[in-house]
Amino acid sequence: MVLEVALFDITPGAEASFAADSTTGRDLLAATPGFRTWRMTQGVESPTRFVLLVEWDSVEAHQAFRDSDRFPQWRALIGPHFATPPHAEHFTDL
Amino acid sequence: MVLEVALFDITPGAEASFAADSTTGRDLLAATPGFRTWRMTQGVESPTRFVLLVEWDSVEAHQAFRDSDRFPQWRALIGPHFATPPHAEHFTDL
Repeated sequence: MVLEVALFDITPGAEASFAADSTTGRDLLAATPGFRTWRMTQGVESPTRFVLLVEWDSVEAHQAFRDSDRFPQWRALIGPHFATPPHAEHFTDL
Repeated sequence: MVLEVALFDITPGAEASFAADSTTGRDLLAATPGFRTWRMTQGVESPTRFVLLVEWDSVEAHQAFRDSDRFPQWRALIGPHFATPPHAEHFTDL
């Protein structure tokens, strides 16, 4: 299992839209084989900052989502709210 | 409930020591009222990068840890492995 940690900095004022659209987009990720769990969080100190935590069976499962036709649908939903390009890396539990 | 997301970039070669010492240090956090869960993860793409996820009852519960005499003990355990100053922010679930 790997944990995707993705950081999103959103245009000020778009927090509620991003929250709603990213929640809608959850189903696009969840339809991918190897998807396990999804958790979107919003910053306390920086409310325009969101951290998405997704558990996947493997990095390859996440890559399969990125290579699927659901990925451009997902980016079309949430991408318009990005203030800067998002950043994602994978982690494994100690 | 708030989620602390803390990022640690560790001196190359110190990954195993940091993993062991941060696991030892877990008990120092866990002794704090308002502590809920602890999850330390290591980067796949960047093995010197670790993300710590701690659930607290509140930001104030985390601050009480930082103000306690357990905080310098914890930093003495893991601080020698830091390549750069750590960064922590708090998040809430959508």
